[in-house]
Amino acid sequence: MAVMGRVWLVGAGPGDPGLLTRRAAALLRRADLVLYDALVDDRVLALARRARRFYVGKRAGKHSLSQDDIHTIMIRAAQRGQQVVRLKGGDPFVFGRGGEEALALREAGIPVAVVPGVSSAVAAPALAGIPVTHRGVASAFLVISGHEEALFKRTMGELTPEGVTLVVMMGLGRRAALARVLLAQGWRAEVPAALVAEASRPTQQVWRGTLGDLAADHALVDGDGPATMVIGAVAGFALTAAREGQPDQAWRVRAGRT
Amino acid sequence: MAVMGRVWLVGAGPGDPGLLTRRAAALLRRADLVLYDALVDDRVLALARRARRFYVGKRAGKHSLSQDDIHTIMIRAAQRGQQVVRLKGGDPFVFGRGGEEALALREAGIPVAVVPGVSSAVAAPALAGIPVTHRGVASAFLVISGHEEALFKRTMGELTPEGVTLVVMMGLGRRAALARVLLAQGWRAEVPAALVAEASRPTQQVWRGTLGDLAADHALVDGDGPATMVIGAVAGFALTAAREGQPDQAWRVRAGRT
Repeated sequence: MAVMGRVWLVGAGPGDPGLLTRRAAALLRRADLVLYDALVDDRVLALARRARRFYVGKRAGKHSLSQDDIHTIMIRAAQRGQQVVRLKGGDPFVFGRGGEEALALREAGIPVAVVPGVSSAVAAPALAGIPVTHRGVASAFLVISGHEEALFKRTMGELTPEGVTLVVMMGLGRRAALARVLLAQGWRAEVPAALVAEASRPTQQVWRGTLGDLAADHALVDGDGPATMVIGAVAGFALTAAREGQPDQAWRVRAGRT
Repeated sequence: MAVMGRVWLVGAGPGDPGLLTRRAAALLRRADLVLYDALVDDRVLALARRARRFYVGKRAGKHSLSQDDIHTIMIRAAQRGQQVVRLKGGDPFVFGRGGEEALALREAGIPVAVVPGVSSAVAAPALAGIPVTHRGVASAFLVISGHEEALFKRTMGELTPEGVTLVVMMGLGRRAALARVLLAQGWRAEVPAALVAEASRPTQQVWRGTLGDLAADHALVDGDGPATMVIGAVAGFALTAAREGQPDQAWRVRAGRT
């Protein structure tokens, strides 16, 4: 009897291999094929000893493969009986197109399962010492993509900042424009803001300032890697500028110019 | 030279030991003391072979220990040179009072680090086949506590549902009242809704229906364990009613009465 192929949509977490789940590690070890995006750490990929590993992420802003190509590769491999891990940064269902891939697989009759991961939406702030919720300060948090300014503007149109932490992903390059959208909606320039770039990696950078600083493009982090923007009262917190193994060593922090 | 004690605020994930991070597992193995809440799986606790394990969660709706007592235990243990793991369901900074504990530890001069975990805010929907974001359907998600109806009402006062998935945690017992708040704010009764109880556990239950069903208290799940409520167009999705090892076996699903 032929072994049935299947696909696991697996979250790789924010980058640090320690933030991979135990199930993700186990699935990588026995996978036949691993399709991975940019931002997946080499030490995570190294767990997939048996597997062919195939990069399907973006290069220099362009997709090296179309979304349809990715679907086709997964479907064909599963039809040949392979155990396929589709490894995505963070969590597969947080801005990861995991939903689209699951739909395509289901339509092709391929069994598909999801293994949630640690999302940068929560982990990036946490690793900068910022709790997205805090009693008496923030009782909710909104996670939004900063990838499209028009969509951001439409979604944010009616949200007041009171008691809600705003977490913007994929908005590093548009940070000033996005901040100006919020100011135009009535958010105060004094609201604390933070940028966490390359969270959980040795290259992690944290910037702190205000929404006004962001709008004036005073937020300085290097590079164009992944970054998470936090806007709201909690962004002023620095509870634990520390990781396991180095709890007393603060990461490089650049102050805002307020 | 005395070893310096310290505290790690560690996320245990939604329940399934496979959804624990590798760092959390490593820290548990070498901890001297583990303070854990309700909802932490026995198989996770069993990793802490060397440690004294101390339950500090709620019992029958009451805290068995006050928050101050928990702080005192952690501070004293760290001052004696112990390596302390404060293990919290999900992620320590998502409605987990992790921020308060980190503050108390810092004020006492205890080194504290955070290890983010897989939050049920994203994982519970995912494990019911619901992506909290989906291109063209939901470009943002709001995570909010349903614990206090007045706070919920104040926060939701200005948010329109368009393109935003609403994820309500700790609102199972107040689900009808919370749904009525949204209807009163102009949300349509036809908006899809889902309840995911005991996500990732063998006892996981999924209910699907509409916001109107929730308001009419037609949402049926057993027990009073942890549950995540999802409201928005994506709540109608069932992309992967499947976990690793049993990808073809749908969990018990109770249909709404719509």
